[in-house]
Amino acid sequence: MYPFKTTQSYPRQQWYIAAFSYEVTRTPMERTLLDEPVVFYRTEAGAPIAVAGRCPHRRFPMVRAAVVGDALQCGYHGWTFDCGGACTAIPSQESYVPNGFKIRTYPVVEKWQWLWIWMGDPALADLGLIPDHAQLHLEDSDWLASVGGVEPLAARYQLMNENVLDLTHVTFVHAKTIGTSGIAAAPIEVEDRGRYLHSERSVSEPAPTAFHARVLGLNGPVERVLSTDFYPPAFLSSGSAFYGGGTLFGRFRVFHIATPETPATSHYFWAFTRSFGQDDAALTEELRAGWRLGVLEDIDAIEGNERMIDRGPLQNDLSAQADAGPLRGRKMVESMILAEREAELLRVR
Amino acid sequence: MYPFKTTQSYPRQQWYIAAFSYEVTRTPMERTLLDEPVVFYRTEAGAPIAVAGRCPHRRFPMVRAAVVGDALQCGYHGWTFDCGGACTAIPSQESYVPNGFKIRTYPVVEKWQWLWIWMGDPALADLGLIPDHAQLHLEDSDWLASVGGVEPLAARYQLMNENVLDLTHVTFVHAKTIGTSGIAAAPIEVEDRGRYLHSERSVSEPAPTAFHARVLGLNGPVERVLSTDFYPPAFLSSGSAFYGGGTLFGRFRVFHIATPETPATSHYFWAFTRSFGQDDAALTEELRAGWRLGVLEDIDAIEGNERMIDRGPLQNDLSAQADAGPLRGRKMVESMILAEREAELLRVR
Amino acid sequence: MYPFKTTQSYPRQQWYIAAFSYEVTRTPMERTLLDEPVVFYRTEAGAPIAVAGRCPHRRFPMVRAAVVGDALQCGYHGWTFDCGGACTAIPSQESYVPNGFKIRTYPVVEKWQWLWIWMGDPALADLGLIPDHAQLHLEDSDWLASVGGVEPLAARYQLMNENVLDLTHVTFVHAKTIGTSGIAAAPIEVEDRGRYLHSERSVSEPAPTAFHARVLGLNGPVERVLSTDFYPPAFLSSGSAFYGGGTLFGRFRVFHIATPETPATSHYFWAFTRSFGQDDAALTEELRAGWRLGVLEDIDAIEGNERMIDRGPLQNDLSAQADAGPLRGRKMVESMILAEREAELLRVR
Repeated sequence: MYPFKTTQSYPRQQWYIAAFSYEVTRTPMERTLLDEPVVFYRTEAGAPIAVAGRCPHRRFPMVRAAVVGDALQCGYHGWTFDCGGACTAIPSQESYVPNGFKIRTYPVVEKWQWLWIWMGDPALADLGLIPDHAQLHLEDSDWLASVGGVEPLAARYQLMNENVLDLTHVTFVHAKTIGTSGIAAAPIEVEDRGRYLHSERSVSEPAPTAFHARVLGLNGPVERVLSTDFYPPAFLSSGSAFYGGGTLFGRFRVFHIATPETPATSHYFWAFTRSFGQDDAALTEELRAGWRLGVLEDIDAIEGNERMIDRGPLQNDLSAQADAGPLRGRKMVESMILAEREAELLRVR
Repeated sequence: MYPFKTTQSYPRQQWYIAAFSYEVTRTPMERTLLDEPVVFYRTEAGAPIAVAGRCPHRRFPMVRAAVVGDALQCGYHGWTFDCGGACTAIPSQESYVPNGFKIRTYPVVEKWQWLWIWMGDPALADLGLIPDHAQLHLEDSDWLASVGGVEPLAARYQLMNENVLDLTHVTFVHAKTIGTSGIAAAPIEVEDRGRYLHSERSVSEPAPTAFHARVLGLNGPVERVLSTDFYPPAFLSSGSAFYGGGTLFGRFRVFHIATPETPATSHYFWAFTRSFGQDDAALTEELRAGWRLGVLEDIDAIEGNERMIDRGPLQNDLSAQADAGPLRGRKMVESMILAEREAELLRVR
Repeated sequence: MYPFKTTQSYPRQQWYIAAFSYEVTRTPMERTLLDEPVVFYRTEAGAPIAVAGRCPHRRFPMVRAAVVGDALQCGYHGWTFDCGGACTAIPSQESYVPNGFKIRTYPVVEKWQWLWIWMGDPALADLGLIPDHAQLHLEDSDWLASVGGVEPLAARYQLMNENVLDLTHVTFVHAKTIGTSGIAAAPIEVEDRGRYLHSERSVSEPAPTAFHARVLGLNGPVERVLSTDFYPPAFLSSGSAFYGGGTLFGRFRVFHIATPETPATSHYFWAFTRSFGQDDAALTEELRAGWRLGVLEDIDAIEGNERMIDRGPLQNDLSAQADAGPLRGRKMVESMILAEREAELLRVR
């Protein structure tokens, strides 16, 4: 599926962001991930649980189940499942429950203020594959990390990956908010750092944007280093360091995660972290409001892009030097999909 | 198509409820049945007529035709068809109409306050296949039968069949209206009675629901016998007899008919009949209002179910003892579909 | 695709009406034609330009491009294309643009107050294939031609062609506006005139419609000659000449053009021209308002027709004498499609 040369749209044997912590409560919440309905709730002790979105009896939506202690009781015929997925009661036959009756559960890990979910074979769910949250400055005592929000995105996740991997777009898509004309013209360096792909460009300009001037207290000539770290399949940390007169005024990262909902739609989670003004709550709100404008501009651009993907005949897309990042990122995800399929084929044999 | 192991969704060589009598008038009315548009109107003498929903000339919607006497005059080019379907006039060529020009008509039978339609080969339309309305207490001088209404149902008809065939759901889906906690736990008996399938359970409870107490004037301990009669492919009579201290306080039946509109949507007709308070018009309104709440709860549940049917991978549904009724009902309908296909194959050869 | 016996819905190697002149300005405008998104704008000198609706780089909607001089600068990464389609700048690599990078452009011709577009191979775009606008009385000093408007039509273009080619429908579809009962009964003559198909009928009636009486100042017995000229694939001129007591009271033509948007939807452009009251601006408004009622009735009829096309099983459509025009028109379009496919096959070999 575009832009991949595979029929499969996303790898399943991977960790994905599923929800912010605040979204998961004692009331069941349904979210479609990788085209599967998943239901989230918490046990009495607060542990997050993820189960299949439909009852294995007659496919009733589990989001309508009652949470009874740590268990879920289906709202149709009352079948009850403990938080490990085992069926523990079927009303019309009292205490008898056949062996092996269960609902599928998914491995989930709560880190920082969000939940990671493993959509593939639970036996392969390696915690070591989750990006290092300290290194991301999400769990870093010198930085302050804040939730942005979750937005519906009517576009495939890979468009988000490629959008953030080529910051040339900042000049055009974000011309009125966080972009300047110089960014697009700056040369780009792309570096493969193993678990992630790093892309970087530097730009010297007579002044920062009004937004950056305000939040950083920085006027006059500025050196800005923009970079993006891409952790395939769907996690991006993008940010800048601002220097004025050789002095560092501040560093920040914005996290962009488009988790596949269906092959052509996503849940767009975003958050940010900064190395300045950590104690200033008003600044946090100002940053959230400012970056949300950028987030909405990206959504608008990416959804426009999605709308055009399958319209009419098209030769191969043309590419330029600035596409090095997006194209390498694309290859990384494609390799995950292909490796997974190969492993499945070996298992079948 | 789920839950059947057939690609065909419904039998065609069967009688279905098509409309309530009050819906069919001198103004054409269109309804899609078994994925075919059908148009209904009445002759001057009041006889109900059902014809194909589109003109055989250029496929114009016949619902826009003018009723001229007993005939329909198409609203596009004026072709006119008598109530037997024969084309009797083509404006631009005066009195000349080629032999055999006609529009398809469907056998319809008006019984009680609704219309039955035969969607298959008219030659096979056997009136004896329609359920006996006296036995249903629809034409029974000791009972009073009332129209409920017709509701759009965004779900396949078989989900309604199976919903009503397992009254375990009454405890959960109707917890706040017509259900009590004891129903789900009561053992069920299912009996094949030839033309229909009978399912029954009895429950003794300290008190009836507030609704039943009010309409029956029954307080304190109660014996309730719940039963469902299923006449395949799509007619259900479900009801209860209430006893207090050994005395019968009342019997009633609610009719649930989900006639296929398309493979995954239905027209839900409902009605009810009772053996008590037959002269009390206010009671009729109270019963209609009370059961309509139950009807809306069923719609909500069944539509939730439909929404989940084709979402993601699923092994076979798990089943329990209470599924005996639904599974036998499913088999009855499936047999109708298979028998019909076999008969067609024989005819083709 | 119905009603053609071809899988292809429309010929591509033909001129189609794409827009009224007033719709194309210095701000890009997007319109889907023959299932392709096309973007229109004007150069500084006012020349209309049509380019592919998506950027050849990453498929971004070109309707969001900035018009810079005569060029378009894509709103995503700033790639710039001159009005001939050549890529002239890629921001992140300065002056270097690989050879052959370009966006598709379409031949367009502005005549009278609308634009014709050639959706096929530009090398085959023969201006001589466009209907003669003088002959149509669009560029005729004795007539006054006026824009009607453009309306969305949820129906395939060929239904419009066949609707206008059989004016029998005027009696039924336009019974309350521009039709009289006598029209349907009048005999029809159809004549192949090479580039176009001519269909005509005459009717003598005791009085014109209220609309025609008002705008023509004609009361009492009337001779009306109705005719339609069809220029395949999608241009119709339909009109009448009105005579009272042997005197010509007026002639007019209404143009009906359903340009394919997708296989089953169209853009309905309409306009009109007249030989009377050319200096009367109020009359122009009255005519526009009156004919718009007819246009809306046609839309309603044709969309009803479209809605029924693929509903359920149907033997072949029945046809009568009045279908001679529609059927010959259908054959003309079908021949265009087949000839085009044959030419393509020859080219491939």
